[in-house]
Amino acid sequence: MVTESPPSLNATTSVRTEATPVLAVKVGGSLFSDKSVEGSLDRAAIARYAHMMAGLHRSRPGGVVFITGGGAPGHGALRNIDETDPFGCLPLTKALADVRWAWTEAFAREGVKALPLQLGAMATLNDDGTFGVRGDTLRRVLDGGALPVLSGDSVLAGDGTLHGLSSDRVPEFLLGALGEPLRVVALTDVPGILLDGPNGKETLAYVDPSRPSAAYDALWTNSEWDTTGGFRTKVDALVRCAAAGGECFILKGSPQDTDYRYLLSPHSRWPSGVSYTRIVLPER
Amino acid sequence: MVTESPPSLNATTSVRTEATPVLAVKVGGSLFSDKSVEGSLDRAAIARYAHMMAGLHRSRPGGVVFITGGGAPGHGALRNIDETDPFGCLPLTKALADVRWAWTEAFAREGVKALPLQLGAMATLNDDGTFGVRGDTLRRVLDGGALPVLSGDSVLAGDGTLHGLSSDRVPEFLLGALGEPLRVVALTDVPGILLDGPNGKETLAYVDPSRPSAAYDALWTNSEWDTTGGFRTKVDALVRCAAAGGECFILKGSPQDTDYRYLLSPHSRWPSGVSYTRIVLPER
Repeated sequence: MVTESPPSLNATTSVRTEATPVLAVKVGGSLFSDKSVEGSLDRAAIARYAHMMAGLHRSRPGGVVFITGGGAPGHGALRNIDETDPFGCLPLTKALADVRWAWTEAFAREGVKALPLQLGAMATLNDDGTFGVRGDTLRRVLDGGALPVLSGDSVLAGDGTLHGLSSDRVPEFLLGALGEPLRVVALTDVPGILLDGPNGKETLAYVDPSRPSAAYDALWTNSEWDTTGGFRTKVDALVRCAAAGGECFILKGSPQDTDYRYLLSPHSRWPSGVSYTRIVLPER
Repeated sequence: MVTESPPSLNATTSVRTEATPVLAVKVGGSLFSDKSVEGSLDRAAIARYAHMMAGLHRSRPGGVVFITGGGAPGHGALRNIDETDPFGCLPLTKALADVRWAWTEAFAREGVKALPLQLGAMATLNDDGTFGVRGDTLRRVLDGGALPVLSGDSVLAGDGTLHGLSSDRVPEFLLGALGEPLRVVALTDVPGILLDGPNGKETLAYVDPSRPSAAYDALWTNSEWDTTGGFRTKVDALVRCAAAGGECFILKGSPQDTDYRYLLSPHSRWPSGVSYTRIVLPER
């Protein structure tokens, strides 16, 4: 690798390709919580996913980040809030701290050094909706070989109002805090962006974030399976993250009898038969 | 004020004196919690101190920071921890998040925009025990006119171990995050460093942080009133903060029928009859 002379464009590309990406795995709320039950947390599901994550963490200590969805506690905190109150979404801060803690305890039982971190203490929102962020603490946690436990949060904007941010926005924060290379895997209850409607199996394999219309066409065609608009929000966030240089995947989560270690391998070496949607800029 | 030519030493001193300091008020755990009762939080005392703090905050929105002691929840989290576990003090993260939240709810009832912030997400510990810190988020919270709610926390050190930091260390963090001028008022159950023993009334009025021996002489003479060493730790931390440029006070907390607005005034204009210990570098 070029060290003494300024790197050429090729050298830069080569370094980027060769560097080991940080792997951020988001476990969606639907996988460990029943939105229809207030405060629902499925401790058994959390324990199973924590066991799976512990394996990934041990394979690459300091190279893995965990992101939890908000689940029922997160949704409950935003129910009946006063939209005119600039701090109305503050209950989200407490609810998601508790969800992060539930995961942290599960990781501790797996013997993993996991540290829950409050997004709203590390980031603010810029006027254009991007994150103002310093990655010092997060980088230190990774350098220490620990597993950061992140989530959505109430985050302060420049006008002094608090914004309730979904966990889907956390990958954008990570890209700002850690830079490239970053791989994001969003585990959810569907195997990707479905082409054949609800309960379908055919996924859109690839989305170019600079031309994401195919993804949105599929979403609009099959709007029945996204009644809350939550999936569209997720796609929006992953497209933004991928446009900024992240390599993003949507996969179906299944903690039992599933070996997820391939998530640490280059995409070209993944096992066949895995369904997903991959969102990444075309190779340069 | 000099704007176009480089400021002279006098001009710099003048600017510093005239700038409005940020006022950080710490309410010690003994004022709202009974250490002998597990998890004890005196909600009525919290409400009264929150009312008092709300008055200070409204007098200087964006210029006041609140720091809570850990109380019984903080002490309980550190009881029976495994000293050999590098993440042994992690329960402190959860316990103090809950204490911050109890205060945040009390502030919300006072109509104050208060935002609890996790110290361990904003700071790391350097090898020499000082804080590695970025003040962006904290500064943004103040600029937005909100009240930051801080506490001690588990904070990561360079060797990858978590350290349980007392709320007494938070002023040092603030000085790193916000710079000068900073006034720190530690409200506790005694009116300052006592010269006449336990239950005494005569306080050491002034401590020069560059020559703090008088303070430690008084502590050692009256060691009965500091059986846990907690007061010595507090003095250590405030002496360090003052040596770095903060103006620090130890005062007896008393939320009822007490007007604390003088805390916002220059020290020379404080009412007579107030007992305290002031720790600050001699005027230059």
